[in-house]
Amino acid sequence: MSTTPEFRFTFTSHAQHTDLSSAHLTAEDMGLPADIAIECKLQTLRGGKQQGSKVITLTVGDKVLRVVPTRAMAILDVTRDALRYGWDSPITEVVHPSFINQEASGGLGWLDGFNEMLARCGYQWAGHPGEDREQMLTLHGRIQNTPADDVVLIVEQEPPYRVTLKGRVDEKRFKSTNFELETELSLTPDEPYVHIKDTLNNLSSYDNTFQAIYHNNFGTPILEQGATLHVAGTQVSPFNDYATQGLHEWNQMPAPTEDFDEMVFNVLPLADEDGMSHALLKNAAGDAGIEVSWASNTLPVLTIWKNTDTLEQGYVVGIEPGTSFAYNRKHQRHLGLVPTIRGKSSKTFQVRFGLFNERADVDASQAKIDALQLTPMLLSNNPLVQL
Amino acid sequence: MSTTPEFRFTFTSHAQHTDLSSAHLTAEDMGLPADIAIECKLQTLRGGKQQGSKVITLTVGDKVLRVVPTRAMAILDVTRDALRYGWDSPITEVVHPSFINQEASGGLGWLDGFNEMLARCGYQWAGHPGEDREQMLTLHGRIQNTPADDVVLIVEQEPPYRVTLKGRVDEKRFKSTNFELETELSLTPDEPYVHIKDTLNNLSSYDNTFQAIYHNNFGTPILEQGATLHVAGTQVSPFNDYATQGLHEWNQMPAPTEDFDEMVFNVLPLADEDGMSHALLKNAAGDAGIEVSWASNTLPVLTIWKNTDTLEQGYVVGIEPGTSFAYNRKHQRHLGLVPTIRGKSSKTFQVRFGLFNERADVDASQAKIDALQLTPMLLSNNPLVQL
Amino acid sequence: MSTTPEFRFTFTSHAQHTDLSSAHLTAEDMGLPADIAIECKLQTLRGGKQQGSKVITLTVGDKVLRVVPTRAMAILDVTRDALRYGWDSPITEVVHPSFINQEASGGLGWLDGFNEMLARCGYQWAGHPGEDREQMLTLHGRIQNTPADDVVLIVEQEPPYRVTLKGRVDEKRFKSTNFELETELSLTPDEPYVHIKDTLNNLSSYDNTFQAIYHNNFGTPILEQGATLHVAGTQVSPFNDYATQGLHEWNQMPAPTEDFDEMVFNVLPLADEDGMSHALLKNAAGDAGIEVSWASNTLPVLTIWKNTDTLEQGYVVGIEPGTSFAYNRKHQRHLGLVPTIRGKSSKTFQVRFGLFNERADVDASQAKIDALQLTPMLLSNNPLVQL
Repeated sequence: MSTTPEFRFTFTSHAQHTDLSSAHLTAEDMGLPADIAIECKLQTLRGGKQQGSKVITLTVGDKVLRVVPTRAMAILDVTRDALRYGWDSPITEVVHPSFINQEASGGLGWLDGFNEMLARCGYQWAGHPGEDREQMLTLHGRIQNTPADDVVLIVEQEPPYRVTLKGRVDEKRFKSTNFELETELSLTPDEPYVHIKDTLNNLSSYDNTFQAIYHNNFGTPILEQGATLHVAGTQVSPFNDYATQGLHEWNQMPAPTEDFDEMVFNVLPLADEDGMSHALLKNAAGDAGIEVSWASNTLPVLTIWKNTDTLEQGYVVGIEPGTSFAYNRKHQRHLGLVPTIRGKSSKTFQVRFGLFNERADVDASQAKIDALQLTPMLLSNNPLVQL
Repeated sequence: MSTTPEFRFTFTSHAQHTDLSSAHLTAEDMGLPADIAIECKLQTLRGGKQQGSKVITLTVGDKVLRVVPTRAMAILDVTRDALRYGWDSPITEVVHPSFINQEASGGLGWLDGFNEMLARCGYQWAGHPGEDREQMLTLHGRIQNTPADDVVLIVEQEPPYRVTLKGRVDEKRFKSTNFELETELSLTPDEPYVHIKDTLNNLSSYDNTFQAIYHNNFGTPILEQGATLHVAGTQVSPFNDYATQGLHEWNQMPAPTEDFDEMVFNVLPLADEDGMSHALLKNAAGDAGIEVSWASNTLPVLTIWKNTDTLEQGYVVGIEPGTSFAYNRKHQRHLGLVPTIRGKSSKTFQVRFGLFNERADVDASQAKIDALQLTPMLLSNNPLVQL
Repeated sequence: MSTTPEFRFTFTSHAQHTDLSSAHLTAEDMGLPADIAIECKLQTLRGGKQQGSKVITLTVGDKVLRVVPTRAMAILDVTRDALRYGWDSPITEVVHPSFINQEASGGLGWLDGFNEMLARCGYQWAGHPGEDREQMLTLHGRIQNTPADDVVLIVEQEPPYRVTLKGRVDEKRFKSTNFELETELSLTPDEPYVHIKDTLNNLSSYDNTFQAIYHNNFGTPILEQGATLHVAGTQVSPFNDYATQGLHEWNQMPAPTEDFDEMVFNVLPLADEDGMSHALLKNAAGDAGIEVSWASNTLPVLTIWKNTDTLEQGYVVGIEPGTSFAYNRKHQRHLGLVPTIRGKSSKTFQVRFGLFNERADVDASQAKIDALQLTPMLLSNNPLVQL
C-alpha cells in the first residue's frame, strides 16, 4: 500500500458508468507542479475501420506514449525526444475489434489490425493458427482484439511522479476460459523506462493452460542496416528451414530487403541475478537503442522475429519474450511450453522497455548483457519443431 | 383489439429515427396513478465488450426485470422482492454482438456472451454446432446475438395495468432465411408471472425449416442442495452416455459439485387441458421456486440442463422447452424435431415464468404438475441419439 | 487540375477528426444559385443490425441517390423522377459491417447484408466461396463490408455543376494485402448518368493478384415480364448446368417465377471505339431502362445474374462487369481472369449508369448496342467451368 498521495482519473469504467470520448489533463489538472511535464489526452478515432477506437496519448517527461484501450491496452508507439520506438505497418488504421474476424482465412484475421509496438498474444493460447485438440486456434490468441474496461490513470503527486495507466481485459468463454487480465503500464518523467506489469487472473475453480507472448516490435530509425541485436542465452535456433539459412547472421540487421520475408529465431535466454533477461537492439552508430527486459520466471523463452523486408511490407524486428515460442500450441506441449495456471490463482508478467538515446546507455546495456554470456551461445541448426 | 387506453413509448425504432441511450419513466410519466409501482429505465453500457449494449430495467409491482434489447430482448434476470431468478455466469459482461464470433472454435462463440435467465436459441437452427447438409451450424443459432429494432413499451392505463415490452429481431440471409421475430414480454403488478409470447414470421414465399429452444436458466438461491425439479412427462432419457449415470437422480439437485460438468436430460412432457406444459424447480425448503410453463403445440419437447458444477464455473439448471432437443439438427430429422414453417406464415411460442416466493404457490404448482402425471414417467437409459 | 471553383465538404475524415452523424446541405449552403436542384443529407441509422450505418442521400437534378459510406460507398438505390433503380431484397436493413461475419456458413455471410443497386465485390478476390491455395475465400471478397474513410462531397460551382462524392476504403492484411480503394461517384443535374470511377492502389512493394466484380442489381419496375436485356458480345454461356436449360432465353425476362432461383450467364462483351461496353435492361413497353456501361480494359467480362424468383425472394437481375466471372478464384486462373496489379501501382475501374425514362433514350441505347453486334453472338451450351 503506497501512502504517496495520488491523482486518479477514470477514462472508462462500467461500474462507474463512465466512458469518455475525449479528455485532456494537464499537470495542473493532476495537482502537480506546473513545471512537471506530465500530460494525458484521450481521443476517439473515426472513419474506416478505426471507428470507435480510442487512443490515450500520455506525455511523461521526454516520453510520449500512445496506448490503445480498445485493443487490450496495446502500446501503439513511444517517442522519446525525436526518436520513435515502434514501426510502420502497412496497417495504418487503429482497427476496432468489431471489424476483426480472427477466424478469417484460416485464422489469420489478427493480421488485419497488427501495427503496434506492444501487442499482447494470449492468453488461452498464443502462436500460429491451426487445430489443436479439435479446436481451431487463431493466430496469437484473442486478447489483442478485446477492448479494456476499468481504464484508469494514476499519478503520484510526489517525486518521482510515477504515472500508471491500468486497464482490465477479459478473455472468457463459458466452460473453457475465465481469465481477467489486469494490465499496468508505468513510467516516470526522469527515467528512460516504460514498465509493463500484467496480472493474469484465472477466476475459474479449475486449473487451465495458458500462453503469452509479448510481441514487441521495432522498425526505423533504430532498425537499419548495421543495427545489431544483443541477447544473452544458452541457445538460438531457427524457427523453420527458411530461417536456418540466416542463422549465422541472426542478430545482424540488413537494410530493407526485397523478398526477405521473415526469419524467426528461438532463443533460450539467460537471466541476471534478479531473474531479468535482456535484449538490446541498437542502431548502426550505437548511439540509440531499445532494451527489452523481462522477468524470466513467467516468460522463459524469447522469439526474435526478423522481418527485414521492404519498408512498404513492414520493416521490423520483434523482440518477443513469452511463455512459449510462436509455434502452434500443439507443437509446444512436448517442449514444456504450455504452462498451467491454477484455479483461482494469478500469474504476473513483467516487461520493461529501455528507451536509450545516448551512447552511454546503449553501451551500458550491451555490457550488462555481455556479462551474462559467460560461455558462448550455442547456434543450433535444428529447428525445435519440424513443421 | 384492446380498447384499454395505453401509454406507448418507443426506445428504438429505425422507422421513427429513434434510439435512446438512456431513459427513465415513472408511473406518472406513463399517466398512471402515482402509487402504481411501475417504472422503466434504459441504460447504455460502456467498457470492455459491453460497449453499446443496452439494458432496460423494468419494475412492475414487486418484480424487477432486466431485458437486453441488443441481445434479442433476452431477460438477464428477474428479481421478485429479495429473490433473484437467473444465474451467475462466469461471463459477467453483457456482451455486445459485435464482439461475438459465433464461428469461433468450431462454432462455440455463442458461449462468449451466455449469461441470461432467458436466452433464445434459433430460429433457422438451434442446438449443438456441427455440419448439417454441407452447412456449418453454430451453437444455438444466430438470434441471440442480434440487436432488436422497434423496441416499444406499452402500459395499459387501467387495472390490472398490464406492462408489455416488445422488440423485433431479424434473422435473414439472402436466399436462405427470411425470418422476423416479434418478441413480447408482459406482466402486471399483482401477478407473479412473466409472459413471453414470440411470433416467428417467415416472410419468404417458401416453406422453411426452423428450430427454437427457450434456454431458461436458474441458479442460486432457488438452486441448491436438495432443490428438486418437477415436471410431468411420458419419458426422460439421458442426452448422452455421461448423463446416463445420473439418470436416477435427474431431478434431484446437488450442491455445487466439482467436476460435475453438465448432465442433460431429454424429456417428453405432458400438457394440461389448455395445452400448457409445466416444470417447477423448487428450493430445498419448498418455500420458493420457479415455474416454467409453455404452450406445447409449438414447443413439444423439454431439455433439462443440469450444470451443477462449482459456483465459479456456473452453477445452474436449464429448463428449456423447444421444438427440438439440444442435438445438432442433423440428428433431429429422424426424431421429427425439425419442423416446417410455411411461406408467408407465422408460428407463436408462449412461455410463462411463475416467480413463487411462498410455499402455497410452490405447493399448488407441484400439485398441478403431479396431477398431470397419471402414470409414472418412463426413465429410459438409452439416449435418443447415439453421438 | 480543374480550375473550376468547388465547394468541398467532409463528412468523415480521420485526419481531420471529422465524423458527422447527420448533415443537411442545400444548394445555397454549397454556394450555388438557389434554383439549382442539388441537395445532400447524411443520416445515421439506428436499431437492429443497422446500428451505426450511415446513408448519404444526394439529390442532383431529377436524380436522388442513396449511398452507404459504411458499406464501401455502395449505392443503395437511385430514383429518377418517380422511377426507382435498384431492387427489393429480403434484407431490408442497411446492415453495419460489425454485424456481418463473412466466414459464416461456409463463407456466405456476405448475403446477410446484400441489398444494394451497386455492391462492389473484390478486391483481393471476388466470386464464390471456397478454398483456393489453402486459403478460404468468402463470397465476393471483403470490400463491401468495410466502412469508408475520407468521405467528401465536391460540387463544382459552375455549370454543369458536377457533383462528386468520394470515399476511401482499405483492404489490408499484413503480409498479404495492402490495397486502398478510392471510390468516386459523380453526376450532374441535367444528365441522366451516374459515373463511377474507382482507383485501386496497391501500396505494397510487391505485385499481387486482384479481382473485381461490380454487382449492379435491378428489380421492378424496369424488371418485369417482357423486359429484355441487350448486350453486344462474342459469346454467352451458362454458368452451370442449371443455367444451360435457360440459355435460349437468357436475355428475356419472365414475371416473378416460383422456384426459378437463379440462372447465371457468362458473357464476353464487345466494346465500342472508346473501349466502353454497354448493357441495357429495358422494360416491356420499352419506355424505361437502365444502361450499364463500363471500361472494358479493366473489366473485360460480364456476368448476368438472372434471379427472377418471387418478389419476396428477391426479383432481380444483375448486370455485373468484372475482371472475372463469379466462379471461385481457383477456377479462373486457367481462364486468364485473375489479373495482377504491380507493386506501387494502380488500376482504374469505370462504370456508368444511364437512367433512362424516355423511349428515345432507350431506343438510342439499344441501337448503339446493336451496332456493335456485327456478327451474331455465339450461344455456347458449355459452361466455361465444370463445377
